[in-house]
Amino acid sequence: MIIVTRSGISDDQLGDLVAHIERAGLRAHVSRGEQRTIVGCIGDERAIAEAGLSALPGVERTMPVMKPYKLASREFAVSHTQIRLDDADETVIGGQEIVVIGGPCSVEGREMLHETAHAVKAAGARMLRGGAFKPRSSPYAFQGLGEPALKLLAEVRAETGLPIVTEALDPRHVEMVAQYADVLQIGARNMQNYALLSEVGRTQRPVLLKRGLSGTITELLMSAEYIMAQGNSNVILCERGIRTYETATRNTLDIAAIPVLKGETHLPVFVDPSHAGGRASLVAPLAMAAIAAGADGLIIEVHPSPANARSDGDQSLEPSAFAALMKQAALFAHAAGRTIHAGATRHTVQV
Amino acid sequence: MIIVTRSGISDDQLGDLVAHIERAGLRAHVSRGEQRTIVGCIGDERAIAEAGLSALPGVERTMPVMKPYKLASREFAVSHTQIRLDDADETVIGGQEIVVIGGPCSVEGREMLHETAHAVKAAGARMLRGGAFKPRSSPYAFQGLGEPALKLLAEVRAETGLPIVTEALDPRHVEMVAQYADVLQIGARNMQNYALLSEVGRTQRPVLLKRGLSGTITELLMSAEYIMAQGNSNVILCERGIRTYETATRNTLDIAAIPVLKGETHLPVFVDPSHAGGRASLVAPLAMAAIAAGADGLIIEVHPSPANARSDGDQSLEPSAFAALMKQAALFAHAAGRTIHAGATRHTVQV
Amino acid sequence: MIIVTRSGISDDQLGDLVAHIERAGLRAHVSRGEQRTIVGCIGDERAIAEAGLSALPGVERTMPVMKPYKLASREFAVSHTQIRLDDADETVIGGQEIVVIGGPCSVEGREMLHETAHAVKAAGARMLRGGAFKPRSSPYAFQGLGEPALKLLAEVRAETGLPIVTEALDPRHVEMVAQYADVLQIGARNMQNYALLSEVGRTQRPVLLKRGLSGTITELLMSAEYIMAQGNSNVILCERGIRTYETATRNTLDIAAIPVLKGETHLPVFVDPSHAGGRASLVAPLAMAAIAAGADGLIIEVHPSPANARSDGDQSLEPSAFAALMKQAALFAHAAGRTIHAGATRHTVQV
Amino acid sequence: MIIVTRSGISDDQLGDLVAHIERAGLRAHVSRGEQRTIVGCIGDERAIAEAGLSALPGVERTMPVMKPYKLASREFAVSHTQIRLDDADETVIGGQEIVVIGGPCSVEGREMLHETAHAVKAAGARMLRGGAFKPRSSPYAFQGLGEPALKLLAEVRAETGLPIVTEALDPRHVEMVAQYADVLQIGARNMQNYALLSEVGRTQRPVLLKRGLSGTITELLMSAEYIMAQGNSNVILCERGIRTYETATRNTLDIAAIPVLKGETHLPVFVDPSHAGGRASLVAPLAMAAIAAGADGLIIEVHPSPANARSDGDQSLEPSAFAALMKQAALFAHAAGRTIHAGATRHTVQV
Repeated sequence: MIIVTRSGISDDQLGDLVAHIERAGLRAHVSRGEQRTIVGCIGDERAIAEAGLSALPGVERTMPVMKPYKLASREFAVSHTQIRLDDADETVIGGQEIVVIGGPCSVEGREMLHETAHAVKAAGARMLRGGAFKPRSSPYAFQGLGEPALKLLAEVRAETGLPIVTEALDPRHVEMVAQYADVLQIGARNMQNYALLSEVGRTQRPVLLKRGLSGTITELLMSAEYIMAQGNSNVILCERGIRTYETATRNTLDIAAIPVLKGETHLPVFVDPSHAGGRASLVAPLAMAAIAAGADGLIIEVHPSPANARSDGDQSLEPSAFAALMKQAALFAHAAGRTIHAGATRHTVQV
Repeated sequence: MIIVTRSGISDDQLGDLVAHIERAGLRAHVSRGEQRTIVGCIGDERAIAEAGLSALPGVERTMPVMKPYKLASREFAVSHTQIRLDDADETVIGGQEIVVIGGPCSVEGREMLHETAHAVKAAGARMLRGGAFKPRSSPYAFQGLGEPALKLLAEVRAETGLPIVTEALDPRHVEMVAQYADVLQIGARNMQNYALLSEVGRTQRPVLLKRGLSGTITELLMSAEYIMAQGNSNVILCERGIRTYETATRNTLDIAAIPVLKGETHLPVFVDPSHAGGRASLVAPLAMAAIAAGADGLIIEVHPSPANARSDGDQSLEPSAFAALMKQAALFAHAAGRTIHAGATRHTVQV
Repeated sequence: MIIVTRSGISDDQLGDLVAHIERAGLRAHVSRGEQRTIVGCIGDERAIAEAGLSALPGVERTMPVMKPYKLASREFAVSHTQIRLDDADETVIGGQEIVVIGGPCSVEGREMLHETAHAVKAAGARMLRGGAFKPRSSPYAFQGLGEPALKLLAEVRAETGLPIVTEALDPRHVEMVAQYADVLQIGARNMQNYALLSEVGRTQRPVLLKRGLSGTITELLMSAEYIMAQGNSNVILCERGIRTYETATRNTLDIAAIPVLKGETHLPVFVDPSHAGGRASLVAPLAMAAIAAGADGLIIEVHPSPANARSDGDQSLEPSAFAALMKQAALFAHAAGRTIHAGATRHTVQV
Repeated sequence: MIIVTRSGISDDQLGDLVAHIERAGLRAHVSRGEQRTIVGCIGDERAIAEAGLSALPGVERTMPVMKPYKLASREFAVSHTQIRLDDADETVIGGQEIVVIGGPCSVEGREMLHETAHAVKAAGARMLRGGAFKPRSSPYAFQGLGEPALKLLAEVRAETGLPIVTEALDPRHVEMVAQYADVLQIGARNMQNYALLSEVGRTQRPVLLKRGLSGTITELLMSAEYIMAQGNSNVILCERGIRTYETATRNTLDIAAIPVLKGETHLPVFVDPSHAGGRASLVAPLAMAAIAAGADGLIIEVHPSPANARSDGDQSLEPSAFAALMKQAALFAHAAGRTIHAGATRHTVQV
């Protein structure tokens, strides 16, 4: 921690500041400049509350020197984290292959789920998404089918072999959802729901953690740290657009978050182009941009009939559009020096 | 719902759109203009998913006509909601009196709580705040003392007569927290934690609902609607600053939210100037502005020794500063045609 | 300037960093901590480009120690700046009296200007606003009447004695506008139009400088510094709402900017509640909040018939609403320990 | 224009609204629904001030039906605009080839400009950028060399054949800058400097128009419209990052703006990854993302010695890094079905 003092700090105030630092078990290093006196804290700065320092009279500003996250930090791990979802190692998250997750926003019934799952598998998706519990801003909107949806997901997994990603909303449901899901999703609204983060941290299921609507990159990593601090280090970060003043899109995809995160952490980074743009026509260009910027995977909403979807119809792709996207994605993955799974029909990369 | 179609929508596309509307049980009113064809939906527009409409080929934009909230809407209630916290009607929220809540960010121990409670009461606070469960962005930061803190709050209430406001973070704790608290606080990070909102909705305790860091005014009202839809209509809304690009303050107090909310809803509107500004020196000017803009109450952090606070030290007031704020607040409440409680020492309004 | 180096910076990299600092004529103070090595620059840090430092290999972050503004800084001036607009000292900006400016968004003709000027004067306004050159986001919208509008403003000033505030958009017009205007307004879109700032800095007319839609408080002060660096120190800062994600209001009034600016600078601080809220019904509550937060003045749009205004009709007050606002403002000014001019009809402050 | 009236609008208020619309020469279409009465304006809605309508008593909300831009609109032009910079058609903007502009932030002298120009040309850049007039937030920072820098640019163009892009800041300089420049740049801070836009609109030089820090996509197109309305339709739009709450990057690159703009307008769309990220390490990933999202070109800052640059050193690439970026860009351009110029050394696309 570095402390910039106010011009004209008195000797008494400076003495109090040094004493305050020393009471916390740190050493203080005072450096008198021409303009300002600067005080550095030597030792583990987490022992001292930054907010308390700012409350001292002679203090103008403080700047932490250390990152607030440890387990999620790139310095902590020797190599990038890879997450394996099956014994056959077909689906490895964070490896050379860019992993694509496809499926409906909500599980609305057996038939639509079945149809979507087979379609996304044929197109090359490695995993199936589908919401059983839906966080909706209106209490009157469709809230998901609940556990019956989880059973349908499990049925379709049995049929297709696709691992399942589904959201947990409530700490009381985590154990139950974890019985069905291969990956637990934490939605954007719950990025700082610490009770929920701790609960998924106590399972051993991989967690897909979405960035909050106004979450900073640092806060996203701190939320990953919450999960990891409970012993579950299988965290996949997911950029899905942030809230800005621009209303032309549902959210603003923070594409730079991908390389920034790759520099800061060893965890895999996914992108959700469906929620970012909020319109079907934007999903493919945003997905390609994500691959080009270094994303390790994508999560994309697919629905057999978007106009009749009970949620997120405007941003859902029809299966044929998803298949076209996968073909295009193969070209960009190749340019990025990576691979993408080709599905039932081999994608021919013509160069 | 009004639907603006694309220029050049085909007759078939228009027919599909009308059929889609009619399948939802609404009637469609087609109006052909020179530039665009507009379609209005007649009937309860909540029957139709706006997102689904946008997925239809000829649709350019949709605009809802009705507000998405009902119970929270000003049209729903004849008069402004008043919330009574005690049989003696000493503390009435949403009435003529501006109600001030004071107390520490976290309950750190008996002595500091005792000292703070007596000080804020003497200065005129009508209620005591104090966190037992703290949502912290770092898993390594102080998370609150938990239930022992609730017991301390109850002890101090018994001594001072001050009703207690404290935060619930986890749906599994709501029942327990409600046994101690007079008002349940939902923090900014949990504004869209629907499991928690539903749970506090099932108690009969008044709820102080804070606006999320990037919550819109409409979303805040929708979150109130979640609580009210469960049968608990005692909701107090609280503006506490939103996240913007400006870094000179912790958050940006959206002062206009007060008159906007007073126009949209019958619920009382509070302001938290401590979190909004994030610095002790800004608390008083923001509190005065809130009163001038029509707030029904304030919630303010007070700590006997801010530099040693375990959380939010930079924005906590010392008891003497809080007492001075209360004196100034009395002058502004008077200018606003309202009253404020004077505490042990009568505030003399000199005019 | 304080420089936090990367963990693992090599001795060579550190040597290069020190050499780089010394080449700029500063001394480097190296402080090796347990976690990081910190380097402080001793001397006038403006001699060194912060951006250049960040480009050096071993540098992680830099933090300036000095404020980037000098003339605008509170440390620079002994007392708060007061600006006198007439020999009789009737209108003093930055003094005890809160100065209110009223008038139409645009000067649309003689009659409406005449009517508005007399009405705002009767209600207590000290100055008249009115646009001759209007920055409009559409090239097809009304752009103002130009110089004829300036002549009308001068005529009405002769009649009413009210000093005139009007906007300059183009550096080529500044001299001409300054012949008519008592105060030159720089609009929000031009806060960083440096050619224009320099030009108004070369006149001796006071300048009302509006904060840009996404201007930070620091940038606003730097723009004031541009004007002052040319020799014109009569700058009035004006908060008028910033752009955020919230769409319920036209902009988000950053009410905290008032006390923050009062702490940072000796310049007077005004507020424009009309543009901030964007709706007539919000003007009065935002104006009262501004007074309560410490504003030195207000600038308010008034139009005899808002529905027929050629610009900003939705946020313009009718003269009667402006008169009511002034009465209410007198009460809040009193609570703030300040005065407000009562106009033709004395405001009776009943307490 | 569609007008949603308040519930409980009186017949008189509705009559006034209809009369107001008819006075503007439009017809009103009144549609009484169960919840609200809706009024549509039939005719050219630009004849009616939206702000004036909102000022009428019974009006709740208004929604324009038409886009506010005409010349810039995709509907206006049959095909995408292509801009030719030389008779040999070597550099065509908006065509199949992705055009890359490279060069220093500021022209600091002959030698550095010469060195950079040759390096970027060798790597495949089609144009040279370099600032002669620099908009700096501090009046004390380096403001550019002015006309001597323009002469140096012209010299280097003569040597290398690279067309020149340089910024005009002041309407009084436009004519002079246009004598040297092949493309006039309008910087982000001047996106709504209408005097400047009109002035460059009166030249026949192509204009590279950067999006403002908080400019919406619609406002960017309206600013293009200002230029085009003066007769200059050679406008290149440039996304360069917007201001958001995230501080990990200098700005937030709005990658979705590319496909949104490609849908809305026929004008070419460029991206400036240097200003968007603000750090050299982010330039390449953002550039690749821009290509993948459909950008027609890139503008990138290159400096022979970033640590010694007089501006923007932190985000400038060294020539070798720029050459590496160009090689990678060729792979992504290929994936996007486009080409990129290979420079002196042919980029070998290995597939």
